[in-house]
Amino acid sequence: MAEANSKSSLAWQETVTTKRKAQATAIEPFLITARDDAHDKITSIASVQGLTDRVARKDFTVHDVVSAYIRKAASANEKTNCLTEVMFEDAIQRARELDDHLKQHEKPIGPLHGVVMTLKDQFDVKGYDTTLGYVGRAFKPASSNAVLVDILQGLGVIFIAKTNLPQSIMWCETENPLFGLTTHPLNPAFTPGGSTGGEGALLALQGSLVGWGTDIGGSVRIPAHMSGLYGLKPSSGRLPYHGVPVSTEGQEHIPSVIGPLARGLSSIHLVTKAVIDAAPWRLDPKMIPLPWREDAYSEVQSRPLVIGLLVDDGVVKVHPPIERILRDVAAELRAAGHEVIDWDASGHQECIQIMDQYYTADGGEDIKRDVSAGGEPYLPHVAALVSRAPAISVYEYWQLNRQKVAAQKAYLDKWRRIRSPSSGREVDVLLTPTMPHSAVPHRACRWVGYTKVWNFLDYTACVLPVGQVDRLVDPSREDAQVTDYAPRNELDRSNWALYNPEKMDGMPLSVQIVGQRLEEEKVLGAAQVVEELLAGTASFP
Amino acid sequence: MAEANSKSSLAWQETVTTKRKAQATAIEPFLITARDDAHDKITSIASVQGLTDRVARKDFTVHDVVSAYIRKAASANEKTNCLTEVMFEDAIQRARELDDHLKQHEKPIGPLHGVVMTLKDQFDVKGYDTTLGYVGRAFKPASSNAVLVDILQGLGVIFIAKTNLPQSIMWCETENPLFGLTTHPLNPAFTPGGSTGGEGALLALQGSLVGWGTDIGGSVRIPAHMSGLYGLKPSSGRLPYHGVPVSTEGQEHIPSVIGPLARGLSSIHLVTKAVIDAAPWRLDPKMIPLPWREDAYSEVQSRPLVIGLLVDDGVVKVHPPIERILRDVAAELRAAGHEVIDWDASGHQECIQIMDQYYTADGGEDIKRDVSAGGEPYLPHVAALVSRAPAISVYEYWQLNRQKVAAQKAYLDKWRRIRSPSSGREVDVLLTPTMPHSAVPHRACRWVGYTKVWNFLDYTACVLPVGQVDRLVDPSREDAQVTDYAPRNELDRSNWALYNPEKMDGMPLSVQIVGQRLEEEKVLGAAQVVEELLAGTASFP
Repeated sequence: MAEANSKSSLAWQETVTTKRKAQATAIEPFLITARDDAHDKITSIASVQGLTDRVARKDFTVHDVVSAYIRKAASANEKTNCLTEVMFEDAIQRARELDDHLKQHEKPIGPLHGVVMTLKDQFDVKGYDTTLGYVGRAFKPASSNAVLVDILQGLGVIFIAKTNLPQSIMWCETENPLFGLTTHPLNPAFTPGGSTGGEGALLALQGSLVGWGTDIGGSVRIPAHMSGLYGLKPSSGRLPYHGVPVSTEGQEHIPSVIGPLARGLSSIHLVTKAVIDAAPWRLDPKMIPLPWREDAYSEVQSRPLVIGLLVDDGVVKVHPPIERILRDVAAELRAAGHEVIDWDASGHQECIQIMDQYYTADGGEDIKRDVSAGGEPYLPHVAALVSRAPAISVYEYWQLNRQKVAAQKAYLDKWRRIRSPSSGREVDVLLTPTMPHSAVPHRACRWVGYTKVWNFLDYTACVLPVGQVDRLVDPSREDAQVTDYAPRNELDRSNWALYNPEKMDGMPLSVQIVGQRLEEEKVLGAAQVVEELLAGTASFP
Repeated sequence: MAEANSKSSLAWQETVTTKRKAQATAIEPFLITARDDAHDKITSIASVQGLTDRVARKDFTVHDVVSAYIRKAASANEKTNCLTEVMFEDAIQRARELDDHLKQHEKPIGPLHGVVMTLKDQFDVKGYDTTLGYVGRAFKPASSNAVLVDILQGLGVIFIAKTNLPQSIMWCETENPLFGLTTHPLNPAFTPGGSTGGEGALLALQGSLVGWGTDIGGSVRIPAHMSGLYGLKPSSGRLPYHGVPVSTEGQEHIPSVIGPLARGLSSIHLVTKAVIDAAPWRLDPKMIPLPWREDAYSEVQSRPLVIGLLVDDGVVKVHPPIERILRDVAAELRAAGHEVIDWDASGHQECIQIMDQYYTADGGEDIKRDVSAGGEPYLPHVAALVSRAPAISVYEYWQLNRQKVAAQKAYLDKWRRIRSPSSGREVDVLLTPTMPHSAVPHRACRWVGYTKVWNFLDYTACVLPVGQVDRLVDPSREDAQVTDYAPRNELDRSNWALYNPEKMDGMPLSVQIVGQRLEEEKVLGAAQVVEELLAGTASFP
């Protein structure tokens, strides 16, 4: 941690101590290390539908469900330091209410009756802090719920905790001075990614059924990728952001969006549809009144797809396991009768070059204000971020926006132009890497170009886990294809140097399915096609 | 005109002279003052469908149509100075092509085969200037078409001219140093409104069938109101803006939108649907993939509506004829079985106070650059606008945007909260004034709060002409209800002082139908209900 604000250093440390003590006190009664097979049976149910079916059949009560998940969440936190706000007591209270309701009315309170979910520490929950990992936001509980929280609670969801995120939010790592560092479930020396890293670690350890994050450059998808989860980044305007404070709030040209992470694709589909079916545009002025389009979801599953395969963005080459998995998936798709055509990265660098200027358009003032309000030190990457560039003028900001729209137009024209050489059809979705590497040691993550370009374009993207690094299959560090590679630039060099199949062995791998703007149904339908295809092949257990 | 840039004053005046001379040369061959009944019969057809039916029936050729409209446009320009770019020769050439096509293929090139339209001088048409009224943009022809132009030409539309607008665009008047002042068709001492004032004057004189404008505060609706036309301001993301340069381009938080003006509601409906049916989101990255929702358009016409009636925004009280027409329409609606409930203006002033800060967030730099590029003088209102406030920082801009979203949320909550006392239902649409006055003398227009608040909220609004000022019906200036009114503020006082039923006699009046964001179908359906209702009553001839 860099430079500390000496004036209030005592104060910030005291706040941290008090906050962490309160958290420990709230967790402590639920820290039961003894094995409990009944609880494990509940938390091992990976899908929302699977759980609600069992609750409806009265195989177990909502109280059972919540108790089981709280146990797992507490132990996940012990292992990875993934939690921030702890809402266990309220969750148990709510579980009893739902059980009473079911007993009294003989029907669930809603389609998500008793489903346990968790939230990145950005979503307002009445009575709990929304810290964003900032010391200055501790002990300032929200006075109302985020729109998403209201909608989901109305459907029967029970929130048990909020989860960790990085200082400034904008980083593919999960660390802040208030709650500390979150670690990867499979290896404490590795990062679970970020910025929704707390959710990633918690879900991978079965401490939640669905987790909600935010994504302005990959923050839902990167933790999903690193921990073997499913994650959706919708286009902006589809899932309600109201009541979700964020860094650089008010900057909307590169929109941050909320999105779910889950342990199964069916859960992603179900909760996305459920939230859209609740008509969030009636509560959030930024939402688009676009109902769930079942026809688009079905149609894309009913025919051969045209898939654009992007393996390399030309800036940072992916590690061999990432390329292996992509090419394997592409081969399976071809074998199943889909068209897979090459998709180049033209336009990507220009998009990213424009995009990066938005993050610092205020000269870092937003983040500086939040940090100085608490007095905590800057993490080194945040210190670098806030001093990277001076503030620009509003006029310059408008010109930047014009560049943005021109680059978006060029990409849209590219999508119109590229056609399958055989059928002449346009591409339905893209198949791309999520990251150039699997999970990496802490603070080693640098290039998020494979995810962030879709934020710039505001396209829809879904991450699917499709395998693991395998030291017996993937080339060793000493293999010629690894040692002979001549990196193109410093980022590429540093990524290539990270490759270590011995240490990465078993780390999850994913693919990213990308559709155009507001094509959530199409992307989820295409993801379903890939999911079913891989489930039917021996190489993807 | 205020302060001139002496350095280049000669240059700018030369540009103006050359530009106007070129315009006169292009118009001259078509300036035929002799009466032509055959031509008049064509231009008197007020609806798009009416025209295309007749062309399909071969009652006349497209060449006949274009020739007739060019004649009318040339004489409208003589009367009101409404044109900027003149595209007559190309239009006639295109008419011949369409006629040949019909002859050869025995079917029209598209559903708008031979429909004559015009464009505010912001829409790029390849080979023609897009001046925005700025001298510095003269003689710099566009290298490609706006997306709207491409789409409409593909459907068979022929554009014959572009039309005048005010310097800076943001004004309810139509005047700039390059093309001069546009006057009202009924009285040269009066303004046709703005900023799409050239279209308003041209359409009212039957010089076009459909005109396209832009609206960031009322610029489509105000000219429609002042000249007795129909006008639609959709929400942003519905009709394609790509290829339409604008003042303060890049400022997107208060989005400027494009919208049609026409001589009949059916034309507004038809062209809006036609453009949406052409899937503009495939060509313009800012468009939302929201197909035309025929169900919403029909549903709202199939049942009693709940209508919120807003007569007074609490800032500037409307003139007696405006109030008369609103209350008459409300009474007709009630008599037809619709519920009409009061809608207050709570929130409006806060919206407008936030909104006004966007226009000058760059300290006027965008406009200053355009004006200094040409060297022409500032019009007084533009001089005032660009020096009204200093530039704010990007951080402050983001805070302003947070205020904006909060005010939008408050208004959305208001819409959820207000219910019909009898049925308990939510309001479908609002019925409101468009302006606090009918057409007024040049440069007297000041308060656009009745239109601009819907831009801030990005709601859909449609203007319908529903009558005229009538000196025999409306109170005289000396009437007690006029003389005894105690204005609330300076704006209200200046508006009240403008009231003059003798001079305003015969000037058109309108009502504005307002729906929520992206409710174009619902608003057009509700407008159809009003239209049909009034067509059936003796008081609205």
